Amino acid sequence: MEFNEEKLIPQLSIDCVVFGYKEGRIKVLVSRLNLSEDIYTLPGGFIRQEEHIDESAHRILEERTGLKEVFLEQYRVFGVANRKNDIILDMFEKLPTESGINKENWQNWFSKRFVSVGYYALVDINKVSLRKSEFDAEINWLDLESLPQMIMDHNEMVDFALESLREKLDEKLIGFNLLPETFTMRQLQELYEAVYDRPFPRNNFQKKMLDLNVLERLDKVYTGAANKAPYLYRFRKDIKSS
Amino acid sequence: MEFNEEKLIPQLSIDCVVFGYKEGRIKVLVSRLNLSEDIYTLPGGFIRQEEHIDESAHRILEERTGLKEVFLEQYRVFGVANRKNDIILDMFEKLPTESGINKENWQNWFSKRFVSVGYYALVDINKVSLRKSEFDAEINWLDLESLPQMIMDHNEMVDFALESLREKLDEKLIGFNLLPETFTMRQLQELYEAVYDRPFPRNNFQKKMLDLNVLERLDKVYTGAANKAPYLYRFRKDIKSS
Repeated sequence: MEFNEEKLIPQLSIDCVVFGYKEGRIKVLVSRLNLSEDIYTLPGGFIRQEEHIDESAHRILEERTGLKEVFLEQYRVFGVANRKNDIILDMFEKLPTESGINKENWQNWFSKRFVSVGYYALVDINKVSLRKSEFDAEINWLDLESLPQMIMDHNEMVDFALESLREKLDEKLIGFNLLPETFTMRQLQELYEAVYDRPFPRNNFQKKMLDLNVLERLDKVYTGAANKAPYLYRFRKDIKSS
Repeated sequence: MEFNEEKLIPQLSIDCVVFGYKEGRIKVLVSRLNLSEDIYTLPGGFIRQEEHIDESAHRILEERTGLKEVFLEQYRVFGVANRKNDIILDMFEKLPTESGINKENWQNWFSKRFVSVGYYALVDINKVSLRKSEFDAEINWLDLESLPQMIMDHNEMVDFALESLREKLDEKLIGFNLLPETFTMRQLQELYEAVYDRPFPRNNFQKKMLDLNVLERLDKVYTGAANKAPYLYRFRKDIKSS
């Protein structure tokens, strides 16, 4: 990566908790760094001097997922004293001088304490093309329920992001960002159950969702077993989930 | 103020929306700067390298209010591109060189774009001793409903803080931080009405508050007209409003 510290705001970073949803499970996008040990991090980056912080977050996310327009929201600033990324610093320490990377600049950059703005994103996992950064050995969707220990406060970042997601799921209908274009009522219910980690009674759930008046029911496609096929729904186009 | 930019995180500030409550009105703490024109700002400051950002916010607030322990919560980061404090920069521009203030350092400091972490605080106005910073002509409690135009995005900061306050007032019972130690049911209702800017039906309100089971009713003091005196309540000591 071209690194010019004068183009970036120092001591301020962005970290993204990217939530996806697949086969009844909430997933989180996690990088494994290209190091001898298994070191895991959330996707993150820095703020260019001329960028709105939201733009920076979108750019960081696009770099890893290929997605241009995603639901992305800042939810908390992580700013404990002496918040430093010693593992990354150590990684640069061990780089051979002839690696072509400006080791000294990076080391100076990461030797400082960072305040990080936490964003969370909700994406349709089917639309994502994962891309590694040059520091990643791999980047993958991991189950929220069994995330590995990550660097610094990144696990805590996920906890707070999940709490924000739960607070807003119902009220702002943002959960639909996690689903494909069309879905069954059962799939929607399973999503809610996964986010809140508890069961919802089926009849109540269906009634509540229909009462919101945000779903459009699609015609059943004749399959020869139409009576058994569940209705497909989609989110009404004239309502903006934000 | 002693100014040593190496002790502070550059390009990152904290601004505080301090809510108080008096005579049925929500008040906000606002400084008028010591300039020829009337320029208003929220109380704010910077983050020392060794401080947790929450500590910085508490310090900034204590400097203006004398209060050590207040309800204070980060609620949003303000980070549009090119967010600069041109008025302050201009103020230093006009300072005579012999003012004793290190003009050049300050100008360099304020010439950069700043990202600001917004905090809001809820305080009992009776406990506050207002103190000006050296840049303030005065610092005062102004009515939320008739705030003057402030610098940069400070009015927007108040709007977002009020929105956060409304979201949490009920759920987290933080409103009690705005009230004195003891209060009548009517005073509590008036507070809610001021925050939400709408009336609450009296019987419903009283029932809802009592059902929360967080209030302790105090004995009536015999005044000779005891039947007319309303009950006083206080927030139960064994519940932490947070």
